[in-house]
Amino acid sequence: MKRLDLLFAAEKASRRSFLRGLSASALATPALSWLAEAAPAQETKPLGIALVGLGSYSTNQLAPALQQTKFVKLTGAVTGTPAKAAEWEKKYNLPRKNIYDYKTFDRIADNPDIDIVYVVLPNAMHAEYTIRAAQAGKHVICEKPMAVSVKECQQMIDASKKAGKQLAIGYRLHSTPQHQEVMRFGREKTFGAIKIVETSDGFRAGDPNQWRLKKSLSGGGALMDIGIYALNASRYITGEEPISVWAQEFKTDPVKFKEVDETILWQLKFPSGAVANSTGTYAASVERLFATAENGWFEMGPCYGYGAIKGRTSKGEINLPQVVHQAAQMDDFAQCVRQNKPTRVPGEEGLKDVRVIEAIYRSIDTGKVINLG
Amino acid sequence: MKRLDLLFAAEKASRRSFLRGLSASALATPALSWLAEAAPAQETKPLGIALVGLGSYSTNQLAPALQQTKFVKLTGAVTGTPAKAAEWEKKYNLPRKNIYDYKTFDRIADNPDIDIVYVVLPNAMHAEYTIRAAQAGKHVICEKPMAVSVKECQQMIDASKKAGKQLAIGYRLHSTPQHQEVMRFGREKTFGAIKIVETSDGFRAGDPNQWRLKKSLSGGGALMDIGIYALNASRYITGEEPISVWAQEFKTDPVKFKEVDETILWQLKFPSGAVANSTGTYAASVERLFATAENGWFEMGPCYGYGAIKGRTSKGEINLPQVVHQAAQMDDFAQCVRQNKPTRVPGEEGLKDVRVIEAIYRSIDTGKVINLG
Repeated sequence: MKRLDLLFAAEKASRRSFLRGLSASALATPALSWLAEAAPAQETKPLGIALVGLGSYSTNQLAPALQQTKFVKLTGAVTGTPAKAAEWEKKYNLPRKNIYDYKTFDRIADNPDIDIVYVVLPNAMHAEYTIRAAQAGKHVICEKPMAVSVKECQQMIDASKKAGKQLAIGYRLHSTPQHQEVMRFGREKTFGAIKIVETSDGFRAGDPNQWRLKKSLSGGGALMDIGIYALNASRYITGEEPISVWAQEFKTDPVKFKEVDETILWQLKFPSGAVANSTGTYAASVERLFATAENGWFEMGPCYGYGAIKGRTSKGEINLPQVVHQAAQMDDFAQCVRQNKPTRVPGEEGLKDVRVIEAIYRSIDTGKVINLG
Repeated sequence: MKRLDLLFAAEKASRRSFLRGLSASALATPALSWLAEAAPAQETKPLGIALVGLGSYSTNQLAPALQQTKFVKLTGAVTGTPAKAAEWEKKYNLPRKNIYDYKTFDRIADNPDIDIVYVVLPNAMHAEYTIRAAQAGKHVICEKPMAVSVKECQQMIDASKKAGKQLAIGYRLHSTPQHQEVMRFGREKTFGAIKIVETSDGFRAGDPNQWRLKKSLSGGGALMDIGIYALNASRYITGEEPISVWAQEFKTDPVKFKEVDETILWQLKFPSGAVANSTGTYAASVERLFATAENGWFEMGPCYGYGAIKGRTSKGEINLPQVVHQAAQMDDFAQCVRQNKPTRVPGEEGLKDVRVIEAIYRSIDTGKVINLG
């Protein structure tokens, strides 16, 4: 047996143990139903996925997660750094022909080993590589934020539609049982109509030379990179699109954050009358989601990072199985591709966030409430 | 033994048990040090206090708390309702001569049984009765918000100074070990410099005919009544005064909240660069205080209501003794009066909140950031 096969055999065994450990009711939740459905069909060949951009997220999150997926398998990579190409070829037993650089990227069209392309590049490059991947006839997962403008988002959606391929945004949290549960609270009005949402996401930005701090690569700062989780959550727990936005920017380190926002506080108003109060920041660590409704409340924290998600409600703890976010996300998408079902997180979902982000920046520039009605 | 003496005897015994249950380190905290200091001096005669306004807060919180105080004792009451006068006379064994109505109120000057007057009237009446009580030569505790304008607050401070008497605002949380602990986190930079504060307070306003919803009595809505706790906390955990304010008002029930604000979201900027994002609302239940700093975070919730206060930090639970807020607050003030020490919560502290509240309303009216520098 090859190394990867050994990994898969071990993985199958541990997945079975995992399934045995789950209660019937847990398997009945949407998040895990694919596990139960898919459990007998272990002979199905996984789809092939290529990661485009071998930075920290690909290296430390996606590639390890792909050792735990069932319906998708790492079969290719795209990098401009020959040393990384050699390293990944060896580490993940990738055929040399499945490793591309940015000049040869479009030849991926001719590679049947690769069904899905995952764009993990700096934000400003998302549109170009998503469109090129679609034109190469591949399904695409594009990291969040989808792109740096609504215009680009629309071009990406159009390109995928034209190619007849799926486009998903890398909103991994939508594939976790915990976030699906709070979506349900909103949808089913478990605690009555939601009135106030408070949700924030932030971390302390380290390396001053990282691409995230260069506007030409990132398109924006803390809001686009990390605040977007809070924005996305306020939309999916209310199930509504904001009708107005008001925001303010704060900066304590104008040298480090010369080009992009360090901290933004924003307020959203939804059609139902619910309001959201949020922070996206590179100044300090924060990840929390709270909503108070007519008859109770729910909250999660930590809730946006890669680890275990904890939550509680006015009725008690949210006690659902923890999953590897990225493995759940990629398996989820692979199943959609295979079954030709729409993804939970299509390009349209990514565009909606970028639309609000543009309005937040416009509110900061003008000092005014921006109507989105 | 009279009924009240019996109560006090029982109270002494239970207080001793309480003291025995406390660790030496707990007794070393500022919140509880007065208990330890005072424990031997059980013969000290408590100061007399009269409650002005026998509404829900006096009836359900203050009078019961006064059965648990050591340094202050309920000796009088002021009410415009003869039936309440009779009821309180009997229930609390008050001499008839110590019960006043609003016409006879000023005669309290001649009553040596009453050292402290606690003004528990609707907000718009705070200034008048605080000033009259000071002119009657009494120390005063005035409920929050201190008054409905900065101008009134200043008049109250001036009147108390002129009388040579103390004036405290009813910020009971300042006398709880938990809030003193988060004040310490800010002051000692336990988790480094505070960067982001998120704190909100709200409840669902019930009775549509209550005085809180009438602007002539309340001066304002959710912000003045309940949001003030969040505002006060953001000031005392940072230990700073805000230099700018931005706020927005939201209304989902324009009939019920015809005269006053239902929900206000506001943002404060502090000189250090810390920012606060807050909500005060009559639309839903919420009470939480969160701060993230350079090297960690702390949060409390529930934290503004009358019950147990729970809190946790990036280092673990906040595990401090629970106290009856109002008993701790009134004993605390009585000790200050007796020892001629400044109160933790002087009129100046109340004025600072009202100053920010005025700026929040001005920001809502103008749609602009209000500078307070």
